[in-house]
Amino acid sequence: MATGMARHRVTRVRWGDGAVAATTSTREDVVAREEPLEIRIDGTSWSVTMRTPGDDFDLVAGFLVSEGVIAARDELASLRYCAGFDEFGRREENTYNVIDAILGPGAVPPSDAHARHSTTTSACGICGTTSIEAVSKQSRFDVAGDGIRVDADVLAGLPDVLRKSQALFDRTGGVHAAGLFTAEGELLCLREDVGRHNAVDKIVGWAVREDRLPLSGTVLQVSGRASFELVQKARLAGIPILAAVSAPSSLAVDLAAASGMTLVGFSRGQSLAIYTGADRIEVGRGAPVEVG
Amino acid sequence: MATGMARHRVTRVRWGDGAVAATTSTREDVVAREEPLEIRIDGTSWSVTMRTPGDDFDLVAGFLVSEGVIAARDELASLRYCAGFDEFGRREENTYNVIDAILGPGAVPPSDAHARHSTTTSACGICGTTSIEAVSKQSRFDVAGDGIRVDADVLAGLPDVLRKSQALFDRTGGVHAAGLFTAEGELLCLREDVGRHNAVDKIVGWAVREDRLPLSGTVLQVSGRASFELVQKARLAGIPILAAVSAPSSLAVDLAAASGMTLVGFSRGQSLAIYTGADRIEVGRGAPVEVG
Repeated sequence: MATGMARHRVTRVRWGDGAVAATTSTREDVVAREEPLEIRIDGTSWSVTMRTPGDDFDLVAGFLVSEGVIAARDELASLRYCAGFDEFGRREENTYNVIDAILGPGAVPPSDAHARHSTTTSACGICGTTSIEAVSKQSRFDVAGDGIRVDADVLAGLPDVLRKSQALFDRTGGVHAAGLFTAEGELLCLREDVGRHNAVDKIVGWAVREDRLPLSGTVLQVSGRASFELVQKARLAGIPILAAVSAPSSLAVDLAAASGMTLVGFSRGQSLAIYTGADRIEVGRGAPVEVG
Repeated sequence: MATGMARHRVTRVRWGDGAVAATTSTREDVVAREEPLEIRIDGTSWSVTMRTPGDDFDLVAGFLVSEGVIAARDELASLRYCAGFDEFGRREENTYNVIDAILGPGAVPPSDAHARHSTTTSACGICGTTSIEAVSKQSRFDVAGDGIRVDADVLAGLPDVLRKSQALFDRTGGVHAAGLFTAEGELLCLREDVGRHNAVDKIVGWAVREDRLPLSGTVLQVSGRASFELVQKARLAGIPILAAVSAPSSLAVDLAAASGMTLVGFSRGQSLAIYTGADRIEVGRGAPVEVG
């Protein structure tokens, strides 16, 4: 059994078409695994996130990019699993649920162990203003000037490619996916997780560990909706186009517009909705979408 | 326009059946609003969450229950919107994105401004052990002894009731919903939000403000998947049955089993899957599900 799955007993109740009585059956079934992961920076506990085990190093590296701590491979010196401690401070066995990230030169370490949270909560006025600048993190990459052009037909076909490549979803029906594609629709990297945000962090982490940041000229396709946080993650990785199978939120559209990013929603084979940056999408042979 | 929605320009590209060329059209469309909400406890900044504006007091009250701070109406003295401060410390206009919660007697205030996070991250060994006790919060309510019985047919019909009552989803296609039901399938409360967790917090907050905790004898139906955190929220509100339209995670099943809660997944009109507590589900007239 792969690390991303677990077995549980499940009782299924079904009603046939027009059947009066239901049928029940009990058997072992597969569900997506969810476990806590503690992330430490230079030995200090920084964050705990629930995630599907697998590609953990990618998850941590991508999370560090999304939080503005690193933006290049050299800024992350090493990643390793370490053992936890029990209530008496004794070292316990390695559960593969604790990872220590050692930062390299150029990284911007969080100011304290709770930096992830205090950068959000201590910023006076973050919610006392409606300005998009107040809630968005600073990115070292500029996606506004990215000259990528993608055919609408190629773009609308990406969810299908994603879905067909999802190994965990096939078994569990319970995970989100994110896929990184070239402008021609070639799949560069696919990651799955019970958390939408984790799947994207795993993609970004794969990229930074491969020294591919910024991800200029790429498209990020996600299986769910496009929230503010997903636009922010794409932006901090230098991805110019974010496409979602479902709807975007208002703040996602606002941030994409302010960043010069292309945001696509309801991407479903035969149609798609372009919220920002329509000039990067071509319909037919080479003609950019006209915004009338 | 309702507070939960915002207007944005969107360009739609469509391919007809067998059509060679795509058609494009640009118009104003409605998306679900997403804005940051800063939560303060007794005047001190505690947490920032992205949410869909609307039912904000319910969201804050429910979040306080989910985090183990309050468990009864009297433990929350008051809730009020307050103005933020600009970078020079000057009071700004009220954006309705900052709420101060004043706790009452009996509440368990977080130990510091970052208590929400430090209770998670400072617990040594949280991820150094695979024990479910290490990651679950203490609940003041015991759902294991809840004698509620629900007909499988009624249960499988709840997602349909939820979907038909979703005002925001109809307009935006981009929000999650949670609904609280009686054992007979009567809808007590419905809430929507871009965040799955927020929708549940809004339900629990409504209940605690109505002095209805623990929510014995009720069913919580959610529009998405069942994660560990959703089971935890239901448990802290004393809800004995959680039903999800989609799949549960392994940790959700583990926590439901350890709590004596009934967890149902893939609840879709003609069928459902019972992961824990099947004895509360009746098939036909009064016969509990047999787990063979």
